[in-house]
Amino acid sequence: MTEILVREDAGGIATLTLNAPERLNALSDAMLAALQAQIDALSEDRNTRVVILRGTGKAFCAGHDLKEMQAARQAEDGGRAYFADLFARCARVMTGLMRLPQPVIAAPHGIATAAGCQLVASCDLAIAAEGTRFGVNGVNIGLFCSTPMVALSRNIPRKQAFEMLTTGGFIGTDRAEALGLINRAVPHDALEAETRALAETLASKLDAAVRIGKRTFYEQIEMGVDAAYAHAGAVMVENMLWRDTNEGISAFIEKRPPDWQE
Amino acid sequence: MTEILVREDAGGIATLTLNAPERLNALSDAMLAALQAQIDALSEDRNTRVVILRGTGKAFCAGHDLKEMQAARQAEDGGRAYFADLFARCARVMTGLMRLPQPVIAAPHGIATAAGCQLVASCDLAIAAEGTRFGVNGVNIGLFCSTPMVALSRNIPRKQAFEMLTTGGFIGTDRAEALGLINRAVPHDALEAETRALAETLASKLDAAVRIGKRTFYEQIEMGVDAAYAHAGAVMVENMLWRDTNEGISAFIEKRPPDWQE
Amino acid sequence: MTEILVREDAGGIATLTLNAPERLNALSDAMLAALQAQIDALSEDRNTRVVILRGTGKAFCAGHDLKEMQAARQAEDGGRAYFADLFARCARVMTGLMRLPQPVIAAPHGIATAAGCQLVASCDLAIAAEGTRFGVNGVNIGLFCSTPMVALSRNIPRKQAFEMLTTGGFIGTDRAEALGLINRAVPHDALEAETRALAETLASKLDAAVRIGKRTFYEQIEMGVDAAYAHAGAVMVENMLWRDTNEGISAFIEKRPPDWQE
Repeated sequence: MTEILVREDAGGIATLTLNAPERLNALSDAMLAALQAQIDALSEDRNTRVVILRGTGKAFCAGHDLKEMQAARQAEDGGRAYFADLFARCARVMTGLMRLPQPVIAAPHGIATAAGCQLVASCDLAIAAEGTRFGVNGVNIGLFCSTPMVALSRNIPRKQAFEMLTTGGFIGTDRAEALGLINRAVPHDALEAETRALAETLASKLDAAVRIGKRTFYEQIEMGVDAAYAHAGAVMVENMLWRDTNEGISAFIEKRPPDWQE
Repeated sequence: MTEILVREDAGGIATLTLNAPERLNALSDAMLAALQAQIDALSEDRNTRVVILRGTGKAFCAGHDLKEMQAARQAEDGGRAYFADLFARCARVMTGLMRLPQPVIAAPHGIATAAGCQLVASCDLAIAAEGTRFGVNGVNIGLFCSTPMVALSRNIPRKQAFEMLTTGGFIGTDRAEALGLINRAVPHDALEAETRALAETLASKLDAAVRIGKRTFYEQIEMGVDAAYAHAGAVMVENMLWRDTNEGISAFIEKRPPDWQE
Repeated sequence: MTEILVREDAGGIATLTLNAPERLNALSDAMLAALQAQIDALSEDRNTRVVILRGTGKAFCAGHDLKEMQAARQAEDGGRAYFADLFARCARVMTGLMRLPQPVIAAPHGIATAAGCQLVASCDLAIAAEGTRFGVNGVNIGLFCSTPMVALSRNIPRKQAFEMLTTGGFIGTDRAEALGLINRAVPHDALEAETRALAETLASKLDAAVRIGKRTFYEQIEMGVDAAYAHAGAVMVENMLWRDTNEGISAFIEKRPPDWQE
């Protein structure tokens, strides 16, 4: 039996691979459940320091599973309850990535459309294979990408987000990088190595510092500047009082590698 | 008698042309009133799918009508009541563009300064003629562009907005595109065709989806991420339950054009 | 005796020079106190129109004074009270720059790291010497740059800020300009002249207009768009009623230089 979401662990790095290539890794009920299960597991996982999210086949992810959604219309309410639950489950996965204690690196290739583009926008970092095409093209079939818009419009400037959403057009990796949707693009055959190298860089840091930093990043960004400083200042006090931070700073002053215990 | 604001309708696209070229299409009382009247009409207009905003003459729009403003100082209160009313009317036009059900494409050329630059920033999309110069240069005459700043600082990064506002300098189309103030620039003699082509692309989509998407865009962007997802998710449920969205998705699955009834 | 922070005044422009080159202009207790004293003085200073912030030696500023921080661990509470006070004092300086009535131009060179990068992000404008390297690299020693993140994440897009914060890597001036962290870079030997030229441009404007504009910039940017327009509109009414603004507009209409009295 093939798993729809494959997890591999090595060196403190968990790689989640969307593995339903025949459906372009669509976010079906099964895929969302598998992602949520991994998010729940990773939330409690002290051994994993970084998460990579990638896909098999021709596309990273083509969004929701439209056939499954259409089938839900057979219900007495025309699908209303199913759709409400579906978008809630999907939002829980997207915000779950943002609230995982570990940084999450998206490694898209091929196409990343609709909720697949949202997945890229919802990860903390993204390295794409050159030639990847990004779109929030639900408008083309009459279903505006309203939930993907939440993530997209917090990654790229307004007019550019609005254009993607209303034209349903694609952008390539050069444009995605210039707008801020991805950190950078690399040749397709370098994608795995480059993504892993970035993950290893992050995994080499003091894990507790990366975790407290990621959490604070998304907390402070929604605050006014004074509240943000009050919060971030309190976080830095805690960070300073850790044994390993004391050691890290001492090691830096003494020009030697830190002896971290975590 | 020449109309100060010309409206032309074709193919579901309304083109509004600022037509006071001898005053560089200044936002006089008459121009603001004409714009507000069109915004009010378009708000109720189910036949118009996209709006284009352009100008005649040498400039797209050079901002407020300074002579009219100076004349208002003759009032007993030195103009206070008039100015308060003027800036309220102007803000109502600017936010009115943002809240129109239809997407609005600005098509600036020549110069777009002060409230004219605000007009570009307030539209959902912008295609500019190459060589257009943008500025928020009220500071040069002692009147800081505080209201244009509201729109500008929501389009481009902080330091770049601050520089434009305090130096009163111009930026060209390359810079405006890189910063996010416009979607792109095209040769002047292609401006009409390119703007129209973009409008036609938008007009070809399911109108109800574009309308609900635009409204949700500006609603969710001011919310925290959890509230934004709750709102956008509810919008997608409604969107899914429309007859034409059902048809659009079915047509996509069956690889045929949709038979939309709207 | 050498001053740790040198202030020079010329032509309405105050230049503050961080002057502890042997410590890479670290934000020690003494440096923070000196900065706060100048911020307090400038807040009441009607003769200064623009502030420049630069540094002597190899680096603009390398962040907090780590040796001083480590020494504070000797206290009975392990440094907790000191650290809380330190981050509060530092945030007061950073937001103080933002709330100074005068625009502040950062002129970094060499390196600007951690709280030194925060200093650049906290100024209204920044011109950097080509080759300056920017980083928020506390993560490398186990101390995540949580407070610098507050300023940084309000200057540049999310994924790019997250990458800098979690990799601890440097970016150069080209990247800093493209992301919005600086306005532009100039050759090192042109830094003083270019920074001064920008300061002089700002100093040539109506001072009261620049002051009310700067204050309103940061006030409105944290508001929803309707509240922002209500506030900015009220500001423009006040601005219109000043004698010098009346004169500035009249002079513009009459194509003559304004006779400003301020």
